[in-house]
Amino acid sequence: MPQSKISDAVIRRLPGYYRYLRTLEQQGIARISSQELGLRMGLTASQIRQDINCFGALGQQGYGYNVTELKEYIAGILGLDREYGVVIVGAGNIGRAVALYPTFIKQGMRVKAMFDVKTSLIGTKVEGIPVFDIAELPAYLSQNRCPVAIVATPGTVAQDVANRLVEGSVKAIWNFAPVDLKVPPEVVVNNVHLTDSLYVLLYKLKEKDLELGRVDE
Amino acid sequence: MPQSKISDAVIRRLPGYYRYLRTLEQQGIARISSQELGLRMGLTASQIRQDINCFGALGQQGYGYNVTELKEYIAGILGLDREYGVVIVGAGNIGRAVALYPTFIKQGMRVKAMFDVKTSLIGTKVEGIPVFDIAELPAYLSQNRCPVAIVATPGTVAQDVANRLVEGSVKAIWNFAPVDLKVPPEVVVNNVHLTDSLYVLLYKLKEKDLELGRVDE
Repeated sequence: MPQSKISDAVIRRLPGYYRYLRTLEQQGIARISSQELGLRMGLTASQIRQDINCFGALGQQGYGYNVTELKEYIAGILGLDREYGVVIVGAGNIGRAVALYPTFIKQGMRVKAMFDVKTSLIGTKVEGIPVFDIAELPAYLSQNRCPVAIVATPGTVAQDVANRLVEGSVKAIWNFAPVDLKVPPEVVVNNVHLTDSLYVLLYKLKEKDLELGRVDE
Repeated sequence: MPQSKISDAVIRRLPGYYRYLRTLEQQGIARISSQELGLRMGLTASQIRQDINCFGALGQQGYGYNVTELKEYIAGILGLDREYGVVIVGAGNIGRAVALYPTFIKQGMRVKAMFDVKTSLIGTKVEGIPVFDIAELPAYLSQNRCPVAIVATPGTVAQDVANRLVEGSVKAIWNFAPVDLKVPPEVVVNNVHLTDSLYVLLYKLKEKDLELGRVDE
């Protein structure tokens, strides 16, 4: 484990390293040089070496990196070697999509229960995960340790749900509702605004159309 | 419209401005100062003023910004005042979640068709949108102009799908498959790696646990 705190920019690149190394491992590649890894990830070899030094793993000069070792090392930094109990609030399309993700994507998470307000969903199961009435959330959290919660509700109720999760000792919230959730400092939150990436894509499309003189249709 | 190219950092903040201004408008707030907007968005007033100057809109000193005007102005920069024909490839949970998004989120997009390989899905409709056999994709694209495509397939087939989309004159791809798609320079792509944000959340949770001396459970 690294001694000093890793910079935010490097942390944001860590999941990419993990994804690429996992793919390499699946392809049966045992060792990779910083040049080759950089080519695949769109980074320079020197950037790769700096990053990997920065989080404390070392390659052997001229031999490159052991793919599985480096992958496991990064998994350890990210905390993916732990397994967190997770609840999903909102059993609509987004909540179900996350519950149905392939296992390798859910590494680090064990989804234990889902909650919704819709009577048609309450009592059903999604991939074996029971869907409970949202009214049962406080009681469930008091009896089942779930440090992580996924919020996949409409924006109008998301902050209220977040407050109840915090009261239930949830320590990390992955939020898909289209609002920025406010939580106390001891809780971490990641607001995923899917439309932000769509808007940036449409902006780039418009710029590219202008650049290439394509007709605006 | 701004004269000069806007920096990437400002572009990444534009969707956030758009979201906050839309919420303010919904709350019936007509004018807002850079101080107030900064407080809500977690930016300084001077950062807000710099950004807004940068994309060419001007507030009146001491009067703040007209919320609707600024929102519409930013929509124009992002290209949300255009409407693009869109196909979704993959009618599973992610594809369906996007198709079922509320209209305000899909601003700028008109989803015209979905495609899948599953016979149980082909011929059905999602929110009125027909699901066709993936084999029909090239013919459909040759007859229906769709500059934007959403890829919501498994990772194993995503690059092949992207190639077919590019052959069908798609100019922008919003990719949810867990691979980085390669496209020619005239096409824009945004790879949404949902798990990256989950991994960063779990990392922050681990760091917070360490910082607060919370027990690793």
